[in-house]
Amino acid sequence: MNVEILGLIAGALTAIASMPQLIKVIKTKNVEDISWLMLVILISGLSLWVWYGFEQNELPIILSNSFAVLVNLTLLICYFIFRDKK
Amino acid sequence: MNVEILGLIAGALTAIASMPQLIKVIKTKNVEDISWLMLVILISGLSLWVWYGFEQNELPIILSNSFAVLVNLTLLICYFIFRDKK
Repeated sequence: MNVEILGLIAGALTAIASMPQLIKVIKTKNVEDISWLMLVILISGLSLWVWYGFEQNELPIILSNSFAVLVNLTLLICYFIFRDKK
Repeated sequence: MNVEILGLIAGALTAIASMPQLIKVIKTKNVEDISWLMLVILISGLSLWVWYGFEQNELPIILSNSFAVLVNLTLLICYFIFRDKK
């Protein structure tokens, strides 16, 4: 199999798996199970993966980690919006 | 910066960020917020990333995704152990 297609399928699967938490948080507006510190660590790590992808010139790495950064940044924003609305 | 070190730091950060959920599930034995289907999709995606890492011969990809497969397999096992203990 073409290795770039392999990476894109891998990225699509890990992206799909990240959506339910985001949908749940937006629907329920409940963020008490979320740790903002862990989100910040995760977003830092994912951003370094994007950087790594650019250094290695690998599209699947860049696309999947950029998507994950977006999802987790949205979760972080939701956290600060919904945190005080209890 | 050496790109392999960049990848290893990125992998360490995303690995650290995955630990609190596992620790919480083991401590509380509460798995009602976990979707086994999403875990299966995630583990499939992460396994393809490990394959991708071997195809590209990139140690940071192989190490970080193998670790994530282990963490999420443990979560899946916890899910089936704790699911009926309510």
